[in-house]
Amino acid sequence: MRILLVNPNSTASMTEQAHRSAERVAAPTTLVEAVNPTTSPTSIEGHADEAMAVPAMLAEIRAGEARGIDAYVIACFDDPGLGAAREIASGPVIGICQAAIQVAMNIATRFSIITTLPRSVPIIEDLVDAYGAGHRCRKVRSVDMPVLALEEDLAHTEEMLVREILRAKQDDGAEAIILGCAGMSELCDRLKLRTGMPVIDGVTAAIKLAEALVGAGYSTSKVGAYDYPRVKSAAVARPVDAVA
Amino acid sequence: MRILLVNPNSTASMTEQAHRSAERVAAPTTLVEAVNPTTSPTSIEGHADEAMAVPAMLAEIRAGEARGIDAYVIACFDDPGLGAAREIASGPVIGICQAAIQVAMNIATRFSIITTLPRSVPIIEDLVDAYGAGHRCRKVRSVDMPVLALEEDLAHTEEMLVREILRAKQDDGAEAIILGCAGMSELCDRLKLRTGMPVIDGVTAAIKLAEALVGAGYSTSKVGAYDYPRVKSAAVARPVDAVA
Amino acid sequence: MRILLVNPNSTASMTEQAHRSAERVAAPTTLVEAVNPTTSPTSIEGHADEAMAVPAMLAEIRAGEARGIDAYVIACFDDPGLGAAREIASGPVIGICQAAIQVAMNIATRFSIITTLPRSVPIIEDLVDAYGAGHRCRKVRSVDMPVLALEEDLAHTEEMLVREILRAKQDDGAEAIILGCAGMSELCDRLKLRTGMPVIDGVTAAIKLAEALVGAGYSTSKVGAYDYPRVKSAAVARPVDAVA
Amino acid sequence: MRILLVNPNSTASMTEQAHRSAERVAAPTTLVEAVNPTTSPTSIEGHADEAMAVPAMLAEIRAGEARGIDAYVIACFDDPGLGAAREIASGPVIGICQAAIQVAMNIATRFSIITTLPRSVPIIEDLVDAYGAGHRCRKVRSVDMPVLALEEDLAHTEEMLVREILRAKQDDGAEAIILGCAGMSELCDRLKLRTGMPVIDGVTAAIKLAEALVGAGYSTSKVGAYDYPRVKSAAVARPVDAVA
Amino acid sequence: MRILLVNPNSTASMTEQAHRSAERVAAPTTLVEAVNPTTSPTSIEGHADEAMAVPAMLAEIRAGEARGIDAYVIACFDDPGLGAAREIASGPVIGICQAAIQVAMNIATRFSIITTLPRSVPIIEDLVDAYGAGHRCRKVRSVDMPVLALEEDLAHTEEMLVREILRAKQDDGAEAIILGCAGMSELCDRLKLRTGMPVIDGVTAAIKLAEALVGAGYSTSKVGAYDYPRVKSAAVARPVDAVA
Amino acid sequence: MRILLVNPNSTASMTEQAHRSAERVAAPTTLVEAVNPTTSPTSIEGHADEAMAVPAMLAEIRAGEARGIDAYVIACFDDPGLGAAREIASGPVIGICQAAIQVAMNIATRFSIITTLPRSVPIIEDLVDAYGAGHRCRKVRSVDMPVLALEEDLAHTEEMLVREILRAKQDDGAEAIILGCAGMSELCDRLKLRTGMPVIDGVTAAIKLAEALVGAGYSTSKVGAYDYPRVKSAAVARPVDAVA
Repeated sequence: MRILLVNPNSTASMTEQAHRSAERVAAPTTLVEAVNPTTSPTSIEGHADEAMAVPAMLAEIRAGEARGIDAYVIACFDDPGLGAAREIASGPVIGICQAAIQVAMNIATRFSIITTLPRSVPIIEDLVDAYGAGHRCRKVRSVDMPVLALEEDLAHTEEMLVREILRAKQDDGAEAIILGCAGMSELCDRLKLRTGMPVIDGVTAAIKLAEALVGAGYSTSKVGAYDYPRVKSAAVARPVDAVA
Repeated sequence: MRILLVNPNSTASMTEQAHRSAERVAAPTTLVEAVNPTTSPTSIEGHADEAMAVPAMLAEIRAGEARGIDAYVIACFDDPGLGAAREIASGPVIGICQAAIQVAMNIATRFSIITTLPRSVPIIEDLVDAYGAGHRCRKVRSVDMPVLALEEDLAHTEEMLVREILRAKQDDGAEAIILGCAGMSELCDRLKLRTGMPVIDGVTAAIKLAEALVGAGYSTSKVGAYDYPRVKSAAVARPVDAVA
Repeated sequence: MRILLVNPNSTASMTEQAHRSAERVAAPTTLVEAVNPTTSPTSIEGHADEAMAVPAMLAEIRAGEARGIDAYVIACFDDPGLGAAREIASGPVIGICQAAIQVAMNIATRFSIITTLPRSVPIIEDLVDAYGAGHRCRKVRSVDMPVLALEEDLAHTEEMLVREILRAKQDDGAEAIILGCAGMSELCDRLKLRTGMPVIDGVTAAIKLAEALVGAGYSTSKVGAYDYPRVKSAAVARPVDAVA
Repeated sequence: MRILLVNPNSTASMTEQAHRSAERVAAPTTLVEAVNPTTSPTSIEGHADEAMAVPAMLAEIRAGEARGIDAYVIACFDDPGLGAAREIASGPVIGICQAAIQVAMNIATRFSIITTLPRSVPIIEDLVDAYGAGHRCRKVRSVDMPVLALEEDLAHTEEMLVREILRAKQDDGAEAIILGCAGMSELCDRLKLRTGMPVIDGVTAAIKLAEALVGAGYSTSKVGAYDYPRVKSAAVARPVDAVA
Repeated sequence: MRILLVNPNSTASMTEQAHRSAERVAAPTTLVEAVNPTTSPTSIEGHADEAMAVPAMLAEIRAGEARGIDAYVIACFDDPGLGAAREIASGPVIGICQAAIQVAMNIATRFSIITTLPRSVPIIEDLVDAYGAGHRCRKVRSVDMPVLALEEDLAHTEEMLVREILRAKQDDGAEAIILGCAGMSELCDRLKLRTGMPVIDGVTAAIKLAEALVGAGYSTSKVGAYDYPRVKSAAVARPVDAVA
Repeated sequence: MRILLVNPNSTASMTEQAHRSAERVAAPTTLVEAVNPTTSPTSIEGHADEAMAVPAMLAEIRAGEARGIDAYVIACFDDPGLGAAREIASGPVIGICQAAIQVAMNIATRFSIITTLPRSVPIIEDLVDAYGAGHRCRKVRSVDMPVLALEEDLAHTEEMLVREILRAKQDDGAEAIILGCAGMSELCDRLKLRTGMPVIDGVTAAIKLAEALVGAGYSTSKVGAYDYPRVKSAAVARPVDAVA
């Protein structure tokens, strides 16, 4: 099967990093393609960034539809445009936040999430509630680093994350940790090793979840809210500048 | 004060209708301007429509910022891009769904909402939960009419709504009704008269709520998740076609 | 329009202070009257105080009805007797706690509340839940000062509040602060200035919300639980001593 | 031990009826006294009635304290003034609604409540939520009879209740029924017999629960929100007319 | 009446300790019998222990049914097999966790629970939610002692509990404390004395609650989920080794 | 990888049916083994059945551990003993109810569940809440057929299910259907075809989810509540008769 991993931001190095993580776990019969738009913000750190990124992300998904992609993974922990993507795609669309939370709920009774900036904490908390894990999530923590700073100095990022994970284990009573940014994906294994905690990377979780749904023959319901968008009467379409 | 009412869809007649409702209730010292983008879908009936409309809506808000608008009203019952709008605007931003629900929670113990298409029902239910009114909302109902059909035959639309309101009163035990689409705004008074039920139009609720916040000196907090978007390093920005 | 601000406790200085705050924000066309009963407890710091204060408060509202008041504000952060007041009044009744929370939910994603005594914290937490803001409220804090002590030494009260607000900002991740007692109203602006946080005073929020509802033509639903009280067969009525 | 059953309304026949139910189940060593004020509304059917009744109810409890009552039962299904009563009493105070719900949660997984007037339904629903039984309560139903009408024609009242109970069994999937008004107490056994459903009367539940708490040595915590009311500086106390 | 207190673990000293607590509060007309299986784990500290203990516990209940027991108390704070027990017994079955929580909700607005091992904390938190006390429970704490260690050095156990209770009072704002293990039962009175906090022992709470239900004539509903187990076609029954 | 599908009841035909469903979707590199105990009830239709089945189910899992099974699927829609299984197994354990719900939450906004007997409905509703899908699940329905009756007349069972699915689509607004019993597994594809609704079979969902977790390297956290059971001092172990 063919899975399209879409990084909604325009930073190619992040796409590549996520692609590597995805390919490490993908089944032999799965082909993972990875793309990012060029017109969206370089990172997504808030509601406005999400909004500006989503149309370009949807364009990538439409392109994927045209070439027969079986399933999609949105590789941004805000799961931006998840509902919109589910409407336009025929195959299932998995958000890495939802996937990580679903894995966590199978392997632990309580978990904490560690994300990048403090301003992202409420956004992720709201997703946790929307996905029904409010009672299971101990805390959403932040290492107070911008998304693009993660890959500047991987060793430093690793230290920051180790420290925060150990706080989560000690103070929150967390039994598992979710990495709250696609950009942390490549550090997942080292973090497990160094902290002794199960650490969940939404990218790998989502790729396998996508394989699972396709493999079991489950696809987005077109009955109801995820139906294809209604065709409207002709709209006057003029390009809009997607940069904030 | 100056309030900008933004209709996120591109149908000017809907903008005009909402503008009339807004001006009927605005204070003498309030100037209500009303705009809609030209590049967004002609109506918003689902997640994808929302996503495609929001960037153009944000552009209108940025333009409003440039000319000193004091507060904004998003005149679409999905409250699309509300968080994004609150990030980029300095003044408060009110969504008509949230406003209507807040009014309802002051004047009744239980209410029902009547919207256009069935596919919009889960979207609105999720908003009700997000706004904390899950226990107060009896039911979200649909008259099964597309948004743009509302104004085709106002008499017919009125009949459909009266019928649904009476069902809500009889079967749900609703004490107040919220109109679940900006396009129903102009029928509000007639519906009150014909059904004897309090009927809440989010447009008028939002305009007055915007006046209230500005009048009391309350504006969006720039501490945290609604802070202005972070300035990113230069993004490669190319126009993206906003039409689905 | 005419708004009656009712302070349910019998301390006139608190009524005057709230009246000043109200008049600072009221529209030019709004006349704010302020009253307090003489037979209720001097301050409301618990369930029993609330209970003893409410009948006298309702008497003030009935008197207001007799002279054509358009809307009422209950100026006590416990929102005591809110449902009862909504039953007997024809115009809308706003509680300052509900109003403050509704403002907070429009301008921030997370907020904390600071109130007077520790014993009031659970009461306010329950109101937060009742008003649907449980997920948005980070913490209800207390400066451990009796209500009447607030105005003894305003400078000291201000220090206590500044300290608690900074803790809320630092430790709770609050994006806005709600003052949890009508008696803190006059310090609102200074607190904003000194802390750099949006600080919400329920009195001003409620006055403007009352104006908003009346201005938009929304009034308490008389269908259902807020209907006028049923007329009973003649009751044997003898005065009851309202002092605890 | 001595339990004081307080009927907050002023209708002596209802007090006597509740007293008979209480005495039927009380332990041999328990003395049940029953009182009602004379100055409160003749029935409690809404928020305003509750508010007007509570001070007189508290006066009865204070009188009980003076003569060494061990525990109190508030015999009105709205549990009016429960928090206030818990503050002023040294012994435990049980509300018949909370007691009935606690019994139901021990003997069934799902239950429905049947009360008097439709306007009381939201009030009781909110109590169900406050007592944490929201997920267990299938429905709060109403036989649309005023409280005082219950005892006018007991046979008719019984028919109405039987019919509603059978609907609850059939349509709600209820496994137990709670009688939502103290005035239904005397019909409890006949209703069980005729419907084959477990039927819970809050009066008997509360009397036994009060015995249980006193017997086990558990009393209201005076640490926190149920502490005795703070003594205030001298209030100007003048009688207030308690009749709505 | 005859109440059977079943300790699901196989440690007789714990059964005796619980029996003593029960008898201290039981009514003169109540006979409390206490048993424990011999084939279950020596203590219950996790899901697997619960699972291995429940069949033997149910066997004790069936034996109780054979000799006419009126009600049952499950003396393990995990309330293991509570639903199963309610199915097979004719009389009511009370779990000590549910009983303790119900008492707490009558005597305080907020409480904390103190249990044995950290691994039991999520299990108890989930019970708190299931019993509807999520908003009332401040925190579930652990003294990090295995169940069987409690009785090794009672003085030491008492110190650990006093320390944790004072933390709960100071840091959680708890108004009452629930002892989160049947094995703490005998220390209840001393803990009350030393800390000045209301301390609730589920064993005594459950015994009295069982008396209350039987005394009021309320028994498990056999309509629905607690009905007697369906009789199946002949099963091939062979003994299974209950030791993990 | 090797997955052990454990049917907790003792009916081999059900195990075989589930095995066939599992093998239809398993990856080529996955070996699915299927077992059922011989000493557990022939079907699981309530809490007592669950309790009697779990120890024997755990024994199968321990045997699986001994032979190096990578992951387990509990093939009973009550997810009995899920926590216990997660404690004793090293690899992940998936319950078919949790798996089905997680799939549903990825492909629809609202779904309904159809199970066998009415008495199972509250049990499943509680699982839905525990798994955080309370707001997404429209209704848990029952076709009022005992578990073992499902395979007596497959055509009849199919008719019953089709009818109930169409009701769920029509009346509940369900966008997807979950089959609420492992015994319905083999009808899944036919039901999809006949109703046009996405129908989710927990068995296939769980097998693929197990593959996903193992493939991504995620396993049950042994930090906290799912840690291996503590080793106790020697217990006196005697066989216990597992038949209810």
